[in-house]
Amino acid sequence: MALQPKKIIIDTDPGIDDAMAIFLALRSPEIEVIALTTIYGNVYTTLATRNALHLLEVAGRTDIPVVEGSHVTLTKGTKLRIADFVHGADGLGNQNFPPPKGKPLEDSAAAYLVQQAKENPGKITVVALGPLTNIALAVQLDPEFYKNIGQIVILGGAFAVNGNVNPAAEANIFGDPDAADVVFTSGADILAVGINVTHQVVLTDSDREKLASSNGNFAQYLNKILDVYFSYHREAYNTKGVYLHDPTALLAAIDPSLVTCMEGIVRVQTNGITRGITILYNKQKRFGEITEWSNKPSVKVAVTVDAPRVVKLVMDRLMDS
Amino acid sequence: MALQPKKIIIDTDPGIDDAMAIFLALRSPEIEVIALTTIYGNVYTTLATRNALHLLEVAGRTDIPVVEGSHVTLTKGTKLRIADFVHGADGLGNQNFPPPKGKPLEDSAAAYLVQQAKENPGKITVVALGPLTNIALAVQLDPEFYKNIGQIVILGGAFAVNGNVNPAAEANIFGDPDAADVVFTSGADILAVGINVTHQVVLTDSDREKLASSNGNFAQYLNKILDVYFSYHREAYNTKGVYLHDPTALLAAIDPSLVTCMEGIVRVQTNGITRGITILYNKQKRFGEITEWSNKPSVKVAVTVDAPRVVKLVMDRLMDS
Repeated sequence: MALQPKKIIIDTDPGIDDAMAIFLALRSPEIEVIALTTIYGNVYTTLATRNALHLLEVAGRTDIPVVEGSHVTLTKGTKLRIADFVHGADGLGNQNFPPPKGKPLEDSAAAYLVQQAKENPGKITVVALGPLTNIALAVQLDPEFYKNIGQIVILGGAFAVNGNVNPAAEANIFGDPDAADVVFTSGADILAVGINVTHQVVLTDSDREKLASSNGNFAQYLNKILDVYFSYHREAYNTKGVYLHDPTALLAAIDPSLVTCMEGIVRVQTNGITRGITILYNKQKRFGEITEWSNKPSVKVAVTVDAPRVVKLVMDRLMDS
Repeated sequence: MALQPKKIIIDTDPGIDDAMAIFLALRSPEIEVIALTTIYGNVYTTLATRNALHLLEVAGRTDIPVVEGSHVTLTKGTKLRIADFVHGADGLGNQNFPPPKGKPLEDSAAAYLVQQAKENPGKITVVALGPLTNIALAVQLDPEFYKNIGQIVILGGAFAVNGNVNPAAEANIFGDPDAADVVFTSGADILAVGINVTHQVVLTDSDREKLASSNGNFAQYLNKILDVYFSYHREAYNTKGVYLHDPTALLAAIDPSLVTCMEGIVRVQTNGITRGITILYNKQKRFGEITEWSNKPSVKVAVTVDAPRVVKLVMDRLMDS
């Protein structure tokens, strides 16, 4: 008897690399995508919902529901930082795609997450590709959520490296640091995949040429939207290639052997010049005093990645037609 | 004609490894110690002054003046964190040494630093072994100080590693984060030697046995006071050895080839759970937005150290009689 595919909810702000991750998920036999929940980040939440519906229509997978998430941060007071300069004003490489036909469910993302986790205790993996507001709301909504949810794989954080919003903070955590701190200390089974790892996973110019030459539906679509993303990387990092943030996190959720991890306690700074910084306490020193990391649950943080294998999986699955 | 020895002012909170660094300095022909300035940290400032005078008397070097520094942090409101659990209640391994005969100069450390730098422009190196309050006061006292001072070698910071006060912060920077941020962004020629480097420089049990078997005056003295320091390391780090923080910084001031450095901009978080964290921006990413690191002067941060050579220098010079 075949193993049941792993049930996955992708919490997403599409986003060019979100589109790659979503298509990759739909081409991965090991998992069943049961819903997309949406969040601000690369775009505002309204546009994230529109893009999520659009991507599922492109994929012919309108059977998968989209559930709209929060439009504001957990503490509601924070001005959103929208990364349109990375992904284009439409989040999908400025391609002027027509509006989708579908609509999101009536539910809120947080309520949906709570309900799905309750109905399938231990069975659902959330792959969180944007700021963690929806997940934090679910944690606050249901004191059992952290136990009911199978695993939360977080694309976020800059562990012991410079951030990508500023030298301290990575974009998804910076997007809602209060939410991130709630999630990291919730007690859930968490795997964080930060830019210390995803900056090692590069889709090169020549990989892109291969994508372009493929007849695959997804490869053709992605090739179109990737221009803006390549331009941004050239300017910001002086690289001829793009970081595969979201696809790496998605694949780590499918196959944990793609990364190695450190276990420890993660806290997030919520104000000041290092707002959004993620600090992993590796437990090597026994502190004499109580610290803000004391008596908090441990999480897993990816520290190495088999980058060639990740890139190969991305290419093989997206070029498949 | 022989080179002039480099003029050094040691800003210190003695402290067991401060005592090692001071003795080491007095045995280093490459430098001339022109004064010790004192600061709180391992002990309160009053006791730091007493210990500085005492150590110079032990060394027979009462020709070197001691100048008392600040008793409070730059912003004056912060409760001091005194590391008596590392160095003993007296800062020198609980040995009940008699009070010194000498007295400090009438001057304040900050005014003394300003004056010495002005009189010897570009010629003086400050080796700062405690919180950076005195140096920040000198920066604020004289707008030319950052240009007049030759170099400031800072023993402080935890660059891309956990701190030693808590997972975010190293003790000297945590002692006065506001002062540290003033100093790091002052424009002075700065070399920071953090615990990411000094935790690689270990004086082992067997090194200590060698010290104990030496007839050297300093070796005998240090062997007595090291008990408390070894005990602390055993409990906190589970190591049979002690970190040579202050001696490493002192030696890096004498011979920069003992470390390799990264250049970049360092800012210090001054509040919240990561208060005292030091973030080095390595300039690898061009940020589209203005950040708190933008338009600030660069400093050097040690990233590797020739630990065997440092330990050998410490041993050779301290065992010399």
